[in-house]
Order: sequence, then structure tokens, then C-alpha cells
Amino acid sequence: MENMKKTIAIDMDGVIADVEAQFISWYLRDYGIIITREDLQGRNEDNAFPEKGLIRKFARTPGFFLSAPVMEGAVEALKILMEDFEVYIVSAAMEFPLSLSEKLTWLNTHFPFISWKNIIFCGNKNIINTDYMVDDHIKNLDNFKGKTIMFHAFHNVSYNHHTRANNWNEVISLIKQDF
Amino acid sequence: MENMKKTIAIDMDGVIADVEAQFISWYLRDYGIIITREDLQGRNEDNAFPEKGLIRKFARTPGFFLSAPVMEGAVEALKILMEDFEVYIVSAAMEFPLSLSEKLTWLNTHFPFISWKNIIFCGNKNIINTDYMVDDHIKNLDNFKGKTIMFHAFHNVSYNHHTRANNWNEVISLIKQDF
Repeated sequence: MENMKKTIAIDMDGVIADVEAQFISWYLRDYGIIITREDLQGRNEDNAFPEKGLIRKFARTPGFFLSAPVMEGAVEALKILMEDFEVYIVSAAMEFPLSLSEKLTWLNTHFPFISWKNIIFCGNKNIINTDYMVDDHIKNLDNFKGKTIMFHAFHNVSYNHHTRANNWNEVISLIKQDF
Repeated sequence: MENMKKTIAIDMDGVIADVEAQFISWYLRDYGIIITREDLQGRNEDNAFPEKGLIRKFARTPGFFLSAPVMEGAVEALKILMEDFEVYIVSAAMEFPLSLSEKLTWLNTHFPFISWKNIIFCGNKNIINTDYMVDDHIKNLDNFKGKTIMFHAFHNVSYNHHTRANNWNEVISLIKQDF
């Protein structure tokens, strides 16, 4: 029966983990400057903050992924999706080796109902084959063969060739109407 | 150009990492008893050694994967495959969380020519989509949609519904003749 369910690949950073909030929070902590979500809109990850490469620096710092807040509505949404879908968490984590164990601990903490069998940490997502993909990165969605939902993030505001969801309620609505 | 290459998913344990040799070596070290490769033939992973669950216990012990020997011929074979294929390392590592960082370090040590972009650690391999898969486990090969090569291991000797390769030379031969 399980194999009859349609499959969906859910990204972590920027989709179920609110790393945007975490970047803003760490930036305030380390630089004493308040950056708002609005300030970030339309920027890319390289120039999001005045200090070049800051996002990659934070992403390489122990504790960053472990203490990231959960995206609003993500827990409830994944429980709903799991009623009808085989849900896989697919994270491009391999670039940041330290993040592997942190991400697994984070998932077990906040999403204990996701089995380890359904977790995938990869480099690129080119060989991931599911019916749906929910992701905030164009590079992942563009290479994907199934149906795509682009989860809103500051770095994707100028792209409109994937169906956009601004939050988890919109993801559920889109999938329910089988867009 | 890169995307035009056919893709191949290569398993780690029992395929490029000689965990069989590692089990035998650790068993001798901890129990003082010599078990040979021949002794293991036809057994499954649960009853491979007199002590039930020993393989899972070893797999959960720090250092097990980090110090596993490289499978004979694997380095040379992967270099050959990379000339014609986009090679992905796909390991079902998620069941043993400690193994994640050890496996990544092991790969970087013994296969430094494999990019982090081409490494995947997963629970099951159900959503992995490549043209070929080289694996020793029936459960991975049976769910796979592309061409399969079953790498010989003690636990798969009684299965014959996948093309068997007894070593890396045979893998290369099979792929070259596009079996």
C-alpha cells in the first residue's frame, strides 16, 4: 500500500527550517545590527548581508542548523501531507559536513514522526525522483522532472517559472487542488 | 555536457567499502575467533556471526566505517566509470547516524576525486533515479527502475534475479558491454 502513495520531496533550509530567521538572529547577535526580512527581499545568498559570504560562514558554524527555528506551519502541514503522500525530507547538506548530524538531530527533535527511512542528505538533487518537490532553490526545482512548488524565500522573489507558495497553508492548498 | 552523461549510483558498504573484511577483522579482535569469508557465504546479516545482531552492533560502534578497508579495485574502477558516467555514491547511512560523518570522511580520504555534489546519504533508496545501480542489497536493487548490477556479498549468494558481478573488474566488463 505504502508504495502506491504519491511521493513528495520536501527541502529543509528555507522550507521546514526557518534559516532566514536564524541568519537575521545571528547577524543581530554578532554584528548588533537589525536586518529585517523585508531588507533581504530580492537579494541573493551571496550579497544578503553587507559582509560577503556571511551566510556560508554561518552555515559552517556549529549550532547553526541545530538551533534553527521551525518554519511556521511546517509540522502541521507535513502531518497532513503524510496522510496522502510518502513524504521524503531531501536536504542538500553535503556541502556543509558539520550540518549532517545537526540536521538529523533537528529532524528527530522537531519532526519525530518522519522515519529515518525517508530522510535524504545529498549534494545536488539531480537524481531525486518523486512526484512533487517543495523547495526554495531554483537550481533544485529546475532540474526536477515532477511537479514543483517554489517555497517563498528572499532569494527567489524574481523567479516566476515555478508555482509559488508563500507559506505552508498555500503549499497544502496547491497540492489539494493538484495544481 | 555533464548532464548528457548517463548516471550510475554506487553503493558504499559491501561495494566500495569492504565491510565484510572489517566485520571479520573486528570479530577476531573482540572474540578471538577466526571467521573466513567462506564461512559467511549464504548467511544473512542477522545470523552471519554466532552472536545475533553483531553486525548492527559493530555498525553502531564509532570507528567502524571510518577504518573500513577499500574494496579491491574500487578506486581504479570508479575512475574508469567517471570517464563515461556521472557517478553518484548512494549509501543507506541514515539508520546509523554516527556513520554519516565517518562515511563522508572516508570518502574524502579514499575517493577524493568524488565531489560532495555527487554524494547521497539516505534511508531507503526508493526515490533514487539513475540509469544504473551497483549494490549488494536485494532490497535496494528490487525497487530500482534502471539497470541493476548485484555486487557479490555473502548475504546475496542465493539470489539470481539481478546480474551478478563478483568484483570490480566484472562490473566494468558488464557496463562496457551494456549488458
